[in-house]
Amino acid sequence: MKTINVGLVGITGYAGMELTRLLAGHPCMRLTMACSRAESGKRLGDYYPFLNRMPGADVIISVFEPQEAARKCEIVFLAVPAGTAMDMADALLRAGVKVVDFSADFRLHDPDTYLQWYKRDHTCPELLHKAVYGLPELYADAIAKAQLVANPGCYPTSVILGLYAAIKHDLILTEDIVVDSKSGATGAGRKASVPTLFCEVSDNFRAYGLPTHRHTPEIEQEISRLAGHEVCLSFNTHLLPTNRGILSTIYTKLKNPNTTFEEVHAAYMTTWEGSRWVRVLPKGLLPETRFVRGSMFCDIGLVVDSRTGRLIILSTIDNLCRGASGQALANANLISGLPVETGLEALAPLA
Amino acid sequence: MKTINVGLVGITGYAGMELTRLLAGHPCMRLTMACSRAESGKRLGDYYPFLNRMPGADVIISVFEPQEAARKCEIVFLAVPAGTAMDMADALLRAGVKVVDFSADFRLHDPDTYLQWYKRDHTCPELLHKAVYGLPELYADAIAKAQLVANPGCYPTSVILGLYAAIKHDLILTEDIVVDSKSGATGAGRKASVPTLFCEVSDNFRAYGLPTHRHTPEIEQEISRLAGHEVCLSFNTHLLPTNRGILSTIYTKLKNPNTTFEEVHAAYMTTWEGSRWVRVLPKGLLPETRFVRGSMFCDIGLVVDSRTGRLIILSTIDNLCRGASGQALANANLISGLPVETGLEALAPLA
Amino acid sequence: MKTINVGLVGITGYAGMELTRLLAGHPCMRLTMACSRAESGKRLGDYYPFLNRMPGADVIISVFEPQEAARKCEIVFLAVPAGTAMDMADALLRAGVKVVDFSADFRLHDPDTYLQWYKRDHTCPELLHKAVYGLPELYADAIAKAQLVANPGCYPTSVILGLYAAIKHDLILTEDIVVDSKSGATGAGRKASVPTLFCEVSDNFRAYGLPTHRHTPEIEQEISRLAGHEVCLSFNTHLLPTNRGILSTIYTKLKNPNTTFEEVHAAYMTTWEGSRWVRVLPKGLLPETRFVRGSMFCDIGLVVDSRTGRLIILSTIDNLCRGASGQALANANLISGLPVETGLEALAPLA
Amino acid sequence: MKTINVGLVGITGYAGMELTRLLAGHPCMRLTMACSRAESGKRLGDYYPFLNRMPGADVIISVFEPQEAARKCEIVFLAVPAGTAMDMADALLRAGVKVVDFSADFRLHDPDTYLQWYKRDHTCPELLHKAVYGLPELYADAIAKAQLVANPGCYPTSVILGLYAAIKHDLILTEDIVVDSKSGATGAGRKASVPTLFCEVSDNFRAYGLPTHRHTPEIEQEISRLAGHEVCLSFNTHLLPTNRGILSTIYTKLKNPNTTFEEVHAAYMTTWEGSRWVRVLPKGLLPETRFVRGSMFCDIGLVVDSRTGRLIILSTIDNLCRGASGQALANANLISGLPVETGLEALAPLA
Repeated sequence: MKTINVGLVGITGYAGMELTRLLAGHPCMRLTMACSRAESGKRLGDYYPFLNRMPGADVIISVFEPQEAARKCEIVFLAVPAGTAMDMADALLRAGVKVVDFSADFRLHDPDTYLQWYKRDHTCPELLHKAVYGLPELYADAIAKAQLVANPGCYPTSVILGLYAAIKHDLILTEDIVVDSKSGATGAGRKASVPTLFCEVSDNFRAYGLPTHRHTPEIEQEISRLAGHEVCLSFNTHLLPTNRGILSTIYTKLKNPNTTFEEVHAAYMTTWEGSRWVRVLPKGLLPETRFVRGSMFCDIGLVVDSRTGRLIILSTIDNLCRGASGQALANANLISGLPVETGLEALAPLA
Repeated sequence: MKTINVGLVGITGYAGMELTRLLAGHPCMRLTMACSRAESGKRLGDYYPFLNRMPGADVIISVFEPQEAARKCEIVFLAVPAGTAMDMADALLRAGVKVVDFSADFRLHDPDTYLQWYKRDHTCPELLHKAVYGLPELYADAIAKAQLVANPGCYPTSVILGLYAAIKHDLILTEDIVVDSKSGATGAGRKASVPTLFCEVSDNFRAYGLPTHRHTPEIEQEISRLAGHEVCLSFNTHLLPTNRGILSTIYTKLKNPNTTFEEVHAAYMTTWEGSRWVRVLPKGLLPETRFVRGSMFCDIGLVVDSRTGRLIILSTIDNLCRGASGQALANANLISGLPVETGLEALAPLA
Repeated sequence: MKTINVGLVGITGYAGMELTRLLAGHPCMRLTMACSRAESGKRLGDYYPFLNRMPGADVIISVFEPQEAARKCEIVFLAVPAGTAMDMADALLRAGVKVVDFSADFRLHDPDTYLQWYKRDHTCPELLHKAVYGLPELYADAIAKAQLVANPGCYPTSVILGLYAAIKHDLILTEDIVVDSKSGATGAGRKASVPTLFCEVSDNFRAYGLPTHRHTPEIEQEISRLAGHEVCLSFNTHLLPTNRGILSTIYTKLKNPNTTFEEVHAAYMTTWEGSRWVRVLPKGLLPETRFVRGSMFCDIGLVVDSRTGRLIILSTIDNLCRGASGQALANANLISGLPVETGLEALAPLA
Repeated sequence: MKTINVGLVGITGYAGMELTRLLAGHPCMRLTMACSRAESGKRLGDYYPFLNRMPGADVIISVFEPQEAARKCEIVFLAVPAGTAMDMADALLRAGVKVVDFSADFRLHDPDTYLQWYKRDHTCPELLHKAVYGLPELYADAIAKAQLVANPGCYPTSVILGLYAAIKHDLILTEDIVVDSKSGATGAGRKASVPTLFCEVSDNFRAYGLPTHRHTPEIEQEISRLAGHEVCLSFNTHLLPTNRGILSTIYTKLKNPNTTFEEVHAAYMTTWEGSRWVRVLPKGLLPETRFVRGSMFCDIGLVVDSRTGRLIILSTIDNLCRGASGQALANANLISGLPVETGLEALAPLA
């Protein structure tokens, strides 16, 4: 198998940490560049002791420079904040390097929507139509040909996969969707801050960001495209005292209130039966975040409540693996002509 | 202050444990009887080492016997499962003892609803109209005169207090309410079982009991009464990896989609300004379970989402104190002619 | 009961947070001054939402100024870092205010030892002989007359109380003591930092600060005084993924390897039988951090290992209450002529 | 690569769960038999939902029967309690199947020591001299030729690897060793019991089993063999509120109190430099349980305390992977002539 040299900009966050972990086990991708302004000059294995004796540990952390990246890498992963990524991506593409961007900078097709939710102008709007939304289940063919992949947000991944079959099969009223999402604390990032200290998060639970979480337009864009018309939904987020995991409880109204569980389940199975990673649970089983930990699986549970005429969809993923770094690696696999699951097969501990 | 002798049947569960804790600090209630078949004969302080050197530690655990209870107690707290409580309550009332029952046996006014949700016949339906629903904010006067108080469920306490002002002020459509509740693991009880082991709950999150949680009819009974018509709502529960705390995120549609946050907030303040325990948060603040830990507070946050025409109400309580033992003690205070907050003033650790 | 006005400098840390909690329930102390440079101007109840509707919530946070303190307070609690406290204490004493200092600045009698372990000169060494080490079990009489109390460190409180009876009764070899202490994360403070983020502490365990933890000389000073000769011991600390609690496992060698458990236990009971807060557990029981949570209790378990001729002492406290703010309040009670336990009687939640 | 068929008896515990996880990623071992009396008849993927779409999910759980095992497997892993394993192992060996036993039944060479610590007679003492202690770093050659491997205990693995270099290089006094070990709650097993419920373990810390933990004789046997004389040490265990991880803090006295850190570190590097899994940390770094999660690594930190003449060794492993199932798989690899690390290379999530 050929060796593919890749780079990672932004190693100090949890998504960067997770990607170094996954790359250490990839059979043919080799980390040749790891960038961080703050940690520049250190050996990666000294910064991340868990990496020692594994591939990647001896890379010296450097400051990002696009020409240097072009010399060292075929693909660069950008794990930097929205607003910072767009100029880096532009420079890399000009230097002939393919880019998988973790940020929101290339997820929204409309620069006005970007401005409205992210409160800044897009500096390279011409790239928006070139970027492919990196959800392999929906866009594998386009991703394989892309120069620039916009890796989906963690919450949107769980919500889009959860709603997909219901909308494809026209089961629900799209004007009445409420999403109640809960995420582990790695989703809040690895910056020093009081609200994410252990003693502020542990044995605590709270909502945050209501009602203006920035993943809202991304979810609406993709759900609208699936539905064939504009969809406006209520998206709401909470912080779990766990490291990882997203569970989205999605409340919908059935178009036909007499629809049975069996009909809904059959629609979901039709859609996902052959899927490698989307697992639809049988009647009576509900998903748990631990069962997808550290993996690419998206587990979906279905509840039909005939009392209220509702379909409740429970969708769970690992926010760092499926919701960020693992999905980025799957996209890089597609770009490189590798099987999408390469390096993503291992099960992580569940307890 | 006079001394009031009280008894507790069911010491081994978390509600029983919490009540022994609270009674140890009560200025005039004295625990004179503590019952548990399994632990009978032990000194309470040997069973619960935390109690040593505190009032109650020297009580010898006994097997419940109604005449003995009548000799020793003015009030008995029943912290036993639904189905077991009703006959005990009947026997105690006949023996002249007042009862605060933690179970669901006397919460529902209609024995048919009880049969439908609890899958058993009620053995003393004639007591249902004598029992008072023990939510002090709504029924303090009736509680003060009651022989039998049906202590509310933990989830219903959070939901009823959360919705109360919105319904009183006719702000929302009652046919479109979705409640997404999350509870700490003490809510799952203190029975030995694999699904509630540390390693099955820790770093995990899941829903359970959808869509038939038994607290549903209790919530609907009280909300219907407030609304003046039958309300059917969607009530859904999740298990948090925390010991304590309930956060209910309540999704409603505004009757008038142009209603502002300020209008909603004013309605809530009108209702709760003078309340000892219900605290309505200012704009932009959302409640956290830790801030009500071990207390009687119910913290309510409000979000008006003009994009979707929704009012989102976030209501949080401590499931063991406000949601069970503390509320039971408040009811016992009312029955005894004491100020409702007696013995319930201390703040518990928040971090 | 007379009202005693008190002030608190340093509200933003966990010890400050804990003291505001405890003062809110104190029957006769009133918080009249709360200082923090960073949060100055805010209402205390806005900074700490848990305080609302409780005493202290309406205090406006101010910048520390000694004359202002003298106008408002009889006693000031200093919950500021070592190095900062000493000059504040000096100014307060000059202004006629009594001081309970949480820092290490006045715990060590010898300024050279202070310099050696804290790497700075003491700026008011003349106060060192006036300061009283604030461990009520050992120094209640002196504390009652003190102007300046050096509140003990959290670890030393657990170790000194744990070893006290063994040394008093001359049971162990003082040249061969190893202390393995474990503390919850509130002990690491409330400053924004990556190593104390939830995701770095949760589901993790590690040692830190070996072998030079600054509490070492404080423990050695007090143990030496008890033993009547210089004692040098090995003190080692670990970080638990819990909010609160210290458990010190203290490994000692018996002077007489044939000493029985019963003899050791009898010695401990002789010492602590009448103590309000030190609880010696019976044979076979070991202490748990949860059973002392939020309280002044120190639970001590004893193990005699005849195979190795060792006495193992397990001593547990709540690091914030007994190890900091509760002990400070007990000292302020003594200074004020109040019963030492005033305002410290409530049991906190254990589960 | 040839396919090796393996069986697992005892799937319902955490070690069994972990082994199904690891086998799902093994390139040439195939699970062909999974036994559990209680769950017999179920599909393994229905019992463990995380396994679905992975190898092993479709195995039907069966009741253990040695002849059936011989038809289906070359190697059988016994993840059953001590006392149950010995007869199963005997039957399997007679049927021609190789055995890797997780229990303590074949770890101790002396049946009298077994009787003394496990309180039962050994039923097949003649197998004790055939069994090989399965610590690959010490006994790889013997393991490769063994019919029966006694997989080491979790604690002993951490302690033996931690002490090995110090004893080999004669650095410490073997008569004065104290081990303070802490383990995550998976070590307490997956049986329904109140003391291991989430709410009893979470935000709590306690010691247990002092001073008679059954891993003591296993540690002493191996350390004595290394030292060349009988060693008696103090071994003490604590329960962490984490799922996984063991950290053993090992207190020793230096033979020569003037030994420097550099000398100790050099001795450890000489021993472990070429090791795949034992990582000796540089000066100033201490190990963390998260950095070895789900892996075979044993991270060792060293502290020389010249004040007390002590060498403190901190040794950490994952109790389920290195301490049980991963080590069992490594042993099965050696038995099968595979590289010891086959199927054990993936890094698990660290946060």
